[in-house]
Amino acid sequence: MGEKETETAEERKDSDGEETAEGTLLVLSAPSGAGKTSLSRALLKTFPDLRPSVSFTTRAPRGKEVDGVDYFFVGDAEFDRMAAAGDFAEWAVVHGNRYGTAKATLDEARRQGQDILLDIDCQGAHRLRQNGEEGVFVFILPPSLDELTRRLRARNTESPEDVDIRIRNAWKEIPAASWYDYIVINDDFDRALEELAAIVLAERCRTVRRAGFLHRFFLDGKR
Amino acid sequence: MGEKETETAEERKDSDGEETAEGTLLVLSAPSGAGKTSLSRALLKTFPDLRPSVSFTTRAPRGKEVDGVDYFFVGDAEFDRMAAAGDFAEWAVVHGNRYGTAKATLDEARRQGQDILLDIDCQGAHRLRQNGEEGVFVFILPPSLDELTRRLRARNTESPEDVDIRIRNAWKEIPAASWYDYIVINDDFDRALEELAAIVLAERCRTVRRAGFLHRFFLDGKR
Repeated sequence: MGEKETETAEERKDSDGEETAEGTLLVLSAPSGAGKTSLSRALLKTFPDLRPSVSFTTRAPRGKEVDGVDYFFVGDAEFDRMAAAGDFAEWAVVHGNRYGTAKATLDEARRQGQDILLDIDCQGAHRLRQNGEEGVFVFILPPSLDELTRRLRARNTESPEDVDIRIRNAWKEIPAASWYDYIVINDDFDRALEELAAIVLAERCRTVRRAGFLHRFFLDGKR
Repeated sequence: MGEKETETAEERKDSDGEETAEGTLLVLSAPSGAGKTSLSRALLKTFPDLRPSVSFTTRAPRGKEVDGVDYFFVGDAEFDRMAAAGDFAEWAVVHGNRYGTAKATLDEARRQGQDILLDIDCQGAHRLRQNGEEGVFVFILPPSLDELTRRLRARNTESPEDVDIRIRNAWKEIPAASWYDYIVINDDFDRALEELAAIVLAERCRTVRRAGFLHRFFLDGKR
């Protein structure tokens, strides 16, 4: 899979320069430790025209995280103001911090025919779906709970207490997988990436996404 | 894409040996000359566990076609008998010959958790959908009508009159693309195959197909 299989927003415009299809919102959720972050990064490399949706959060930056790239890092007061103003398509509290997706981010991507990847927890994803937000919802699962525990302990970025919290949360979150459109099992990383890439590519072949091509096909045929 | 991404019907059985998901019916249609036959063959090689559905037809075998492999070649009387007995999930007249899919073929594949590929014209596909047959419907389009004409002339297997009939039929068939689930544009063969393979793989990641995995996940977690 490489660049040749990607379509830019520009290519999706028809000959009159009109956008023929809205961008697709790809929603990825997973319990902590299932490999969502690594898979998201690899997927964004596979599809250079798929862009990450940047969320707002009240948590402090970790490691090399950059404001405006990884998240928009805001204070509690600013987050409160945005929430009160109805600026969020969804927001949720995860591990004691607030995370939210601005409506403006989704609206702009949709208008530009830009596919975006939204990496959010299942509460946030559920709110998007309840609010009737159109999107492709994918849940990433570890091969087993034992394997999830092993991975969380091995990565050594959280305290043992935090690992326990994450495992308890995983147990609560995983039943949500049943309402997602797709389930990707991250047993083998390359295989999981291949499945995610197949979902993105297949969704681009949906008839509704190719309405512009069908339209041009008939216009050309009438010449 | 290779063998590692395929799942056998056996693997889809849960630990009690019960089938956890029905096989998927993949329906491929295309106007004559769009490359459906070559793409179907390549797709079957990509997914060794995807099997072709063998149709019944009243037309005479062509070239190296084998009875029971490419088609079940039957006489008009036998076809009439099967149609009268309600043995067909769909049947249609294409270029003056009758083609039909036996209900028994679809029922058996479904029961065995076997994914099958059904290569039929859009009349037959439409009847399957009208009859509420569950399936993934994919329409293959040439990049343009001019290119379709060029390909039909180049392959030199039909008389010029037959080529004209096929082009007129294509013009009538192509609007049906709008009700299919997916559209694959066969401009570049490898790219079209990649899209078809992505559709098959993505469909295997559908939550409903992975219900058995989810079930086992929770059983294991309770031990």
